[in-house]
Amino acid sequence: MMNGTQYVESLKAMKPRIFFRGERLKKPYDHPAIAPHVRTAAMTYDLARDPKHADLMTAISNLTGERISRFTHLFWSVDDLVKKIAMLRVIGREVGTCFQRCVGLDGINAIWATTWEIDAAKGTDYHKRFRKFLEGLQREDRMSCGAMTDVKGDRSLPPWQQTDPDMFVRIVERRADGVVIRGAKTHITGAVNSHEVLVMPTLGLPPEGSDYAVVCAVPLDTPGLTLVFGRQTNDERKAEEGMFDCGTPYGVVGGEATLIFEDVFVPAGRVFMAGEGEFAGGLVERFASWHRANYGGCKAGNADVLLGATALLTEILGTVKNPMVKDKLTEIVHLVESVFAGAVGSSALATKLPSGNWLVDPLLANTVKQNVTRFVYQVARLTHDLGGGLLSTLPSDADFRNEEIGGLLEKYFKGKDGFSTEDKRKLCRYIENMTSVGTLVEALHGAGSPQAQRIVMLRQADLPAKAEAAKKVIGIKGPAARKKEGH
Amino acid sequence: MMNGTQYVESLKAMKPRIFFRGERLKKPYDHPAIAPHVRTAAMTYDLARDPKHADLMTAISNLTGERISRFTHLFWSVDDLVKKIAMLRVIGREVGTCFQRCVGLDGINAIWATTWEIDAAKGTDYHKRFRKFLEGLQREDRMSCGAMTDVKGDRSLPPWQQTDPDMFVRIVERRADGVVIRGAKTHITGAVNSHEVLVMPTLGLPPEGSDYAVVCAVPLDTPGLTLVFGRQTNDERKAEEGMFDCGTPYGVVGGEATLIFEDVFVPAGRVFMAGEGEFAGGLVERFASWHRANYGGCKAGNADVLLGATALLTEILGTVKNPMVKDKLTEIVHLVESVFAGAVGSSALATKLPSGNWLVDPLLANTVKQNVTRFVYQVARLTHDLGGGLLSTLPSDADFRNEEIGGLLEKYFKGKDGFSTEDKRKLCRYIENMTSVGTLVEALHGAGSPQAQRIVMLRQADLPAKAEAAKKVIGIKGPAARKKEGH
Amino acid sequence: MMNGTQYVESLKAMKPRIFFRGERLKKPYDHPAIAPHVRTAAMTYDLARDPKHADLMTAISNLTGERISRFTHLFWSVDDLVKKIAMLRVIGREVGTCFQRCVGLDGINAIWATTWEIDAAKGTDYHKRFRKFLEGLQREDRMSCGAMTDVKGDRSLPPWQQTDPDMFVRIVERRADGVVIRGAKTHITGAVNSHEVLVMPTLGLPPEGSDYAVVCAVPLDTPGLTLVFGRQTNDERKAEEGMFDCGTPYGVVGGEATLIFEDVFVPAGRVFMAGEGEFAGGLVERFASWHRANYGGCKAGNADVLLGATALLTEILGTVKNPMVKDKLTEIVHLVESVFAGAVGSSALATKLPSGNWLVDPLLANTVKQNVTRFVYQVARLTHDLGGGLLSTLPSDADFRNEEIGGLLEKYFKGKDGFSTEDKRKLCRYIENMTSVGTLVEALHGAGSPQAQRIVMLRQADLPAKAEAAKKVIGIKGPAARKKEGH
Amino acid sequence: MMNGTQYVESLKAMKPRIFFRGERLKKPYDHPAIAPHVRTAAMTYDLARDPKHADLMTAISNLTGERISRFTHLFWSVDDLVKKIAMLRVIGREVGTCFQRCVGLDGINAIWATTWEIDAAKGTDYHKRFRKFLEGLQREDRMSCGAMTDVKGDRSLPPWQQTDPDMFVRIVERRADGVVIRGAKTHITGAVNSHEVLVMPTLGLPPEGSDYAVVCAVPLDTPGLTLVFGRQTNDERKAEEGMFDCGTPYGVVGGEATLIFEDVFVPAGRVFMAGEGEFAGGLVERFASWHRANYGGCKAGNADVLLGATALLTEILGTVKNPMVKDKLTEIVHLVESVFAGAVGSSALATKLPSGNWLVDPLLANTVKQNVTRFVYQVARLTHDLGGGLLSTLPSDADFRNEEIGGLLEKYFKGKDGFSTEDKRKLCRYIENMTSVGTLVEALHGAGSPQAQRIVMLRQADLPAKAEAAKKVIGIKGPAARKKEGH
Repeated sequence: MMNGTQYVESLKAMKPRIFFRGERLKKPYDHPAIAPHVRTAAMTYDLARDPKHADLMTAISNLTGERISRFTHLFWSVDDLVKKIAMLRVIGREVGTCFQRCVGLDGINAIWATTWEIDAAKGTDYHKRFRKFLEGLQREDRMSCGAMTDVKGDRSLPPWQQTDPDMFVRIVERRADGVVIRGAKTHITGAVNSHEVLVMPTLGLPPEGSDYAVVCAVPLDTPGLTLVFGRQTNDERKAEEGMFDCGTPYGVVGGEATLIFEDVFVPAGRVFMAGEGEFAGGLVERFASWHRANYGGCKAGNADVLLGATALLTEILGTVKNPMVKDKLTEIVHLVESVFAGAVGSSALATKLPSGNWLVDPLLANTVKQNVTRFVYQVARLTHDLGGGLLSTLPSDADFRNEEIGGLLEKYFKGKDGFSTEDKRKLCRYIENMTSVGTLVEALHGAGSPQAQRIVMLRQADLPAKAEAAKKVIGIKGPAARKKEGH
Repeated sequence: MMNGTQYVESLKAMKPRIFFRGERLKKPYDHPAIAPHVRTAAMTYDLARDPKHADLMTAISNLTGERISRFTHLFWSVDDLVKKIAMLRVIGREVGTCFQRCVGLDGINAIWATTWEIDAAKGTDYHKRFRKFLEGLQREDRMSCGAMTDVKGDRSLPPWQQTDPDMFVRIVERRADGVVIRGAKTHITGAVNSHEVLVMPTLGLPPEGSDYAVVCAVPLDTPGLTLVFGRQTNDERKAEEGMFDCGTPYGVVGGEATLIFEDVFVPAGRVFMAGEGEFAGGLVERFASWHRANYGGCKAGNADVLLGATALLTEILGTVKNPMVKDKLTEIVHLVESVFAGAVGSSALATKLPSGNWLVDPLLANTVKQNVTRFVYQVARLTHDLGGGLLSTLPSDADFRNEEIGGLLEKYFKGKDGFSTEDKRKLCRYIENMTSVGTLVEALHGAGSPQAQRIVMLRQADLPAKAEAAKKVIGIKGPAARKKEGH
Repeated sequence: MMNGTQYVESLKAMKPRIFFRGERLKKPYDHPAIAPHVRTAAMTYDLARDPKHADLMTAISNLTGERISRFTHLFWSVDDLVKKIAMLRVIGREVGTCFQRCVGLDGINAIWATTWEIDAAKGTDYHKRFRKFLEGLQREDRMSCGAMTDVKGDRSLPPWQQTDPDMFVRIVERRADGVVIRGAKTHITGAVNSHEVLVMPTLGLPPEGSDYAVVCAVPLDTPGLTLVFGRQTNDERKAEEGMFDCGTPYGVVGGEATLIFEDVFVPAGRVFMAGEGEFAGGLVERFASWHRANYGGCKAGNADVLLGATALLTEILGTVKNPMVKDKLTEIVHLVESVFAGAVGSSALATKLPSGNWLVDPLLANTVKQNVTRFVYQVARLTHDLGGGLLSTLPSDADFRNEEIGGLLEKYFKGKDGFSTEDKRKLCRYIENMTSVGTLVEALHGAGSPQAQRIVMLRQADLPAKAEAAKKVIGIKGPAARKKEGH
Repeated sequence: MMNGTQYVESLKAMKPRIFFRGERLKKPYDHPAIAPHVRTAAMTYDLARDPKHADLMTAISNLTGERISRFTHLFWSVDDLVKKIAMLRVIGREVGTCFQRCVGLDGINAIWATTWEIDAAKGTDYHKRFRKFLEGLQREDRMSCGAMTDVKGDRSLPPWQQTDPDMFVRIVERRADGVVIRGAKTHITGAVNSHEVLVMPTLGLPPEGSDYAVVCAVPLDTPGLTLVFGRQTNDERKAEEGMFDCGTPYGVVGGEATLIFEDVFVPAGRVFMAGEGEFAGGLVERFASWHRANYGGCKAGNADVLLGATALLTEILGTVKNPMVKDKLTEIVHLVESVFAGAVGSSALATKLPSGNWLVDPLLANTVKQNVTRFVYQVARLTHDLGGGLLSTLPSDADFRNEEIGGLLEKYFKGKDGFSTEDKRKLCRYIENMTSVGTLVEALHGAGSPQAQRIVMLRQADLPAKAEAAKKVIGIKGPAARKKEGH
């Protein structure tokens, strides 16, 4: 397993084509906009090397028998799934933001299960190819991102009915030695600082959409692949001296990027689905189940930091002993632990797939994510309530460093005796940035929009079985039963 | 293990002193107000004898090695706790209402752990006494209720400062062969149809409150014990022919009663705490933790039936295909599965107590109950929304049976073709009764009022640790650290 | 204007055909199930005669120039509408429950406006007929109820496609001297103790539904009209000595009934629409607008009583000084005043109709009702939270009156010194009954179900105008604009 | 009255000392950070000159009989208050953001009423001084800001117990010709582009705090006054070419600043309170009442634009016809109209003050603001839900303008046919910026934090009167009554 420094060096050995704010980045990993995200991902490597965290951060590979990072490990038991949630919370608390790597992890597991099933049904050899790819990934401890969401064009139309057929990534050429793909994936977390891109379809596909049924792995610096790093809330503050007004050295979201594939060739050994659209829906749904449960881990860890920061700030403001302040802190606790409890619950009730890895309870996993889409806004409001108007109006760090007025600002923004104005400002900046539109929207739409969860929930709730339970308890027969009896 | 019929017979062998609506009940178990609750508890006995449910409903006693009802079993592993939640949901779905027995179960576990600790600290023999009592309970498959909540008088005062010292149950005499207790416990679920009453204190007690620190087991027909069965929403409908307007044969809550102890003598072998007030808080808190997690199991099971009933009713009304109707059904699913997921999660993260049984994660368990106190009102509103005005205005069953107008009502309250008006009415009545004040308040206050959970949450959230995490991520020092460095 | 006693006498002069719990009521106005509702309506008559309330409770008729009850008055100015809301809150606070009369009031106004429009468009004389009817109603101070909601059968089908064509009230015969109607109206508030029934259609009607477009006035004891009084939560408690467990002498809802019209003849002078379906939608929508605004008045008044009762109960429990208790009381205040403010706001922005009476702002009125459908559940939860478990488990009044145990119950259910156990019980019973399913569902579905409001809101929000505002602010053109410019 | 251009020129005639991002601004009104706020305020001048808006935007001064801007007008009737709310909504819809001027307007009215009362009680001549000041303000159409919120230091301590006595603005010297003040006011909306600063205390003051009881008017370029313009979300984007990524040319909040008074001399004619601390609370509470009602006007207007933008965006995304999308748009409508209705309602129930101007209903006004503190988060979530992940990840405008990748981005971020990618991006940017932390926190804490409203609500709800109403309805006596009768 690499440590953080080795990880960063390995990145710098690549030459990806990355754009940001109108220019191609020559040294992307040193660029102020991207470095915080690299720093965050590096922390996942360092923690894996820390013996204190070995139980959560690493695992014994069922493929190779070697100790590997849990981020490249197949979910081989219920315990693996529960530990994943615990790991996500621990890291979330160490960095206080998105650390990007769970997308690739869930992608690996989804591709493992789906390739097994395609091969079983169709006699293909995708699973064998993928196993080989995965063994390499585990051995070399490479970071992979999961590229699922297409740009989608007109959302009322399926991929094959769009005016521009490229609005979903598709196979434009099938060659003996591989496929050529075209299209764009967007909102891809951790992409710019991953080694590998796992391309996956974004929805189930009928036969007429089979060209869109493509799963493959693409190295980040593959010819034809261009990344455009997304603009973030307050991203320019990263370029300021000391990054003070960023509130954190780790970035506020996952460093999302848009990936444009301009006829990228993928060799056969890296292709894991190429037209079998009937398996695309299953892949998406399982990926989503695992991934939605995650949010109860990582976001709880992030919220721990936000809660701690808010509690500290109320201490500095002198309000912490007010019973209503305590009640609001308690409500944050409640919201955070609710999603964490749900994530553990969905893991504890996992079932084994035919391919050997374990799937969280999909219904419960979806409720977790649905709750996350609500709780981040509630938590944001509570932290804003407790933090006060300064979250919106605090002068910039440069003003505090100004010779003429710095002293005055220092004087007037002082809180309780014994605390520095600087600490007060740092806490305000952290809360401000971690409750920005960037983070809220990521928590809302990441791993699927709220509506996506509701569709799954209704389907998986098995209402007919519940109607039967109701009939039994209440003593009614319903039309079917009565028909049988000749009514 | 007894079956349901044997259970009912065993009850009838007792002669408890039970009052209801102004009179002492001669045959309480046949009385229409109480019979539905007996029927519900009997179902827990029958299900335990059903091989299909053996894995959930029964367990191998760690005390005797015999197969026993899970309702008398100590939580001897994480698996026992997860299975308890699963069992509660299954039974909740079979009877659609409170089945009463989990209070005694959690009481047994709380007393087990606390007597172990008192003995370890003080050299008493409470644990030995309790073990003997419990072995008998397991062997004879007796039902116990947990009597914790005192009547409390003026809630701004502790027990020993009340004008009337009897507002919390207390020891009024200590004898060589036992103790004499006086006071009243209220809201006691399942009491009238239990064999045993487990008396427990309702709060932690300092030395001046040591007379109030009493744990003991009292048979239901002990001299000096009087039970007054609480009035329930629509309880008179139970006495009507066919109980049609009750909506269910199982009752809508747990058959709560007030228990008055008029100087009841309890022999030493049945006394498990008598003055060790410093252990009372721990007993209450652990009992509450287990019990609060339960609500994510049983209430989810009850809500399954309510959801099924509501879905059926929308089918009969002809509204089920409306996307907004589907969305509201989905919201019920979401709310229900959220509390269930949390209950499983709090069980999956259980820890072993020194006494050998396992305790759910208290923080997570409290969030479950807190969510339940909210979700029942949200679910009620959704079912009312979907069910329509008839839930409030439907004519009585007697009107439908009236010769003059029954046919007209049958005609005019008809729903979609293929469904009977009678089924429609039954569903309305079930929803009406299962969302009544009785059930809502029980879900709100049972296992502790909402505020009780919040107090625990704030205490267990470990805000200082979270503040430390925030300091680390954000890079601030805070006053303590700075002091060390000599600032 | 009649006083309360005269009102009751006038009722007793009628011989309506009313059924309840399986039997025809010989003296309906003395029947314990109905008397509380009569008592409540009588209060509206008494208050109108109280000089202290003259400004709110009465008005000068624009038809006759005489002082009349505001409940028979046309809304002839913005001030009339604002005063209506104020009146509703005052009465709501005097009786603490639904006082039934606003349905008829809004019905009068809706029929006034719609008959004016039909006549203007079609040269009919409905408005003249109605004016004459209304003058009589004002002069004799008769109470009218509004019968709008049909039983509806299969709600996915319009009236004329139902298997049974009678699922909506319709004209089955047109005669020279009037019409004959058949069908049933349900959930009709105040019907049993009104003098007149204002029959109105429940939805807009295209030509194929013209038989269902009927508006008319029917005296309560018209041959062929049968009323079935709906079953209410805990309604049997009304028959108990002293009605103690009812919590209030006024009833908990509006005394809703189902009205069955078995080929009822209505003379021409009482027919105000007979086939002009194109005007039915307008009538319904305006009626609904006025009526939905009302809920911010009467329900606020009712909630005032509930809030007062809850505050008193917390005093007796000894919890009132707890900051969290205060905060929950504050939340009730907030919810109540929000709907009241909205009702006043929708009245203050009223506009004049061609017929001369004034219509509340429909969009704002709909938001009021929508908020009410939510706030009653929130208020219920808060009162339950503060009231405690006794709301679900308190023994019956008969137990307190029992010689053997009454004293014990008196002792053990005592609260803070200086307060009687009886007062504590009364408060519990009031809260219990006023938050029952009956009241919740009435507040939810009365004046139209939540979904009905949303449909109106979306239609009246004028999204295109808001999109234009957005285009202007943001500086975008949109497809239409660009087309014009030749793009 | 000035038009917008004249207003900007009048600003440029001043030489205030303004800092931003570490430097003193030489031409503050041309600075990209401040120009958008100037532009917004200028719009209020232009609209007042537009005959179409004369009825709302202007009024006849009760002081001078001349037509003036409504922003300098005393509330001389209920109609004035209702029109103020309507005006705020109209402007809010024209600029889609905070237009700053209502603070000064409410400040004028509060000072008018309070000076009248001080003079009446103490024989001072503050009111006369203020009248003269106000006449000048009206005549010259000058913009005033209201500087109320102090920096507060340790919030658990009152002003006179702070370690540093300057944490609240105070009089440090009383001279024959005026007073000298020291301290800082923060979060001051519109300050940098106002002509006048109305200094007001932030809380009621007992005798020991009388030095903090100061009300006065200070021209912006008074010696000793320094302004530090607050840092805003994404504020650096304003400096980019075309401001594309700002989403709007008008700024996202009110341009809040911190004002530092370093021993500023205020001549007597501009001093309107100097030590009369017993009147400070009344001034604050009335100011807050008017100001809290406003939020139902301006924020509704802003939300109209946000709603329109969101609706447009769903059209471009192709999702607008989805019933769930419609339902979410409807929910925004509901939330917006609820606060607007409340604001109108609180105005419609205004009462006349002794000083002649009219005060909104304070209880209702507080509910309006409380609802606003919630609805902005709910609206933000709904717009984010409908807007999608692009709100968080959209590449910068510079990328779209880049020669190498601009075309690709144009292709891949295209929506429905007939709409431009540019419009789609603009809508995303508008929503992103208008739901940022800056705007949310401003809506939450502006005009007083949520807790401030709750304190007022509880005090003004008159719970004893409601308890009396409950006693009357329920038929209980309570301790006081019973005592009188000799119990």
